[in-house]
Amino acid sequence: MRRDELASHDGELFAELTGEVMVGYLGLVTAAGIPRSIALNFAALGEDIYFHGALGGEKFDLLQHDPAAGFTIVKEYSYIPSNWSAPRYACPATHFFKSLEMKGTCGPIDDPVEKAAALQALLEKHQPEGGYDPIDPTVPQYAKALAHVGVYRMRGESWTGKVKFGQNEPEKLQRIFVTKLRERGGATDEATACEIEKNLAE
Amino acid sequence: MRRDELASHDGELFAELTGEVMVGYLGLVTAAGIPRSIALNFAALGEDIYFHGALGGEKFDLLQHDPAAGFTIVKEYSYIPSNWSAPRYACPATHFFKSLEMKGTCGPIDDPVEKAAALQALLEKHQPEGGYDPIDPTVPQYAKALAHVGVYRMRGESWTGKVKFGQNEPEKLQRIFVTKLRERGGATDEATACEIEKNLAE
Repeated sequence: MRRDELASHDGELFAELTGEVMVGYLGLVTAAGIPRSIALNFAALGEDIYFHGALGGEKFDLLQHDPAAGFTIVKEYSYIPSNWSAPRYACPATHFFKSLEMKGTCGPIDDPVEKAAALQALLEKHQPEGGYDPIDPTVPQYAKALAHVGVYRMRGESWTGKVKFGQNEPEKLQRIFVTKLRERGGATDEATACEIEKNLAE
Repeated sequence: MRRDELASHDGELFAELTGEVMVGYLGLVTAAGIPRSIALNFAALGEDIYFHGALGGEKFDLLQHDPAAGFTIVKEYSYIPSNWSAPRYACPATHFFKSLEMKGTCGPIDDPVEKAAALQALLEKHQPEGGYDPIDPTVPQYAKALAHVGVYRMRGESWTGKVKFGQNEPEKLQRIFVTKLRERGGATDEATACEIEKNLAE
């Protein structure tokens, strides 16, 4: 990833990425000073990020004092091969993306109403078709489960979004990318072409 | 992600995930003690992970003394909705995956031959169709670029793989997942069904 990324604090980008990306990466430091990136399913409520886990184990031990944490999510778009930019020179190869990096603190929550709301948000994100009884702390089957599951809240003190679609390249090259992406027709290529076109239209 | 994941130290899993997953997450701690998860394109050479970046900026400042670091990659498979396991109860919802988490140290390398090999590995991974002159530090167009780009090596002191495909669920339920995945036919569903079937055949 090169340095022509554009920083963004656009709330729409936050909503898009937290709503669409399935796995986020929580940055923590162990008691021994070892950094970890922990992969998690998550959901956002407002600007807070929630995930669940056991009330025990290293993650719980690390998190129970609401320590400093980072949280990163990336929506991957297309890889752009070097030879779309230069005939033989490898260096222009790149990968387009949108990303969000949050800095803040993370710890377990206790309130069963907030826990239920967080788990309900996780279900609504991953299973929008429904097929389950809503998670309600007053329903006996859920009250017991809520008491035993750990729910963690990552609260951002700041976050930064980045979007990289070759915005700083000459317009002519951006239009070549759009054409080549549509010719190739890979899984993310049409979406990537549309993002480049949005930038060109601005 | 629940605790029925199976730890693995299988070298084939390392090769599969480092070869196929496009973005990995480097865990670091800033000088101010803030953990970060930094998204990166990467390639493996042996059991070392390489990525590139500028020779400056926060990542460079953090990494120049070969500090403790973590590196995590995940290959996402299918989401399994709760109602494939239970008619109304939301809690069995889960997400299948393979992952790799490495602990070790990370810092910039200086040897132009190793830098060239690392960048060549990145190109071969992302652009297997070729279309560029191989990265060779004796070729003038590359010698200058190699001097100016930062190449970082993450060296693992240990790594742990995990694979989660409902291995600890009853066989009957695993077979229901296979059937439902093939009925749904989403992007990762056939691959997920195959992984479950591999476990059932063992």
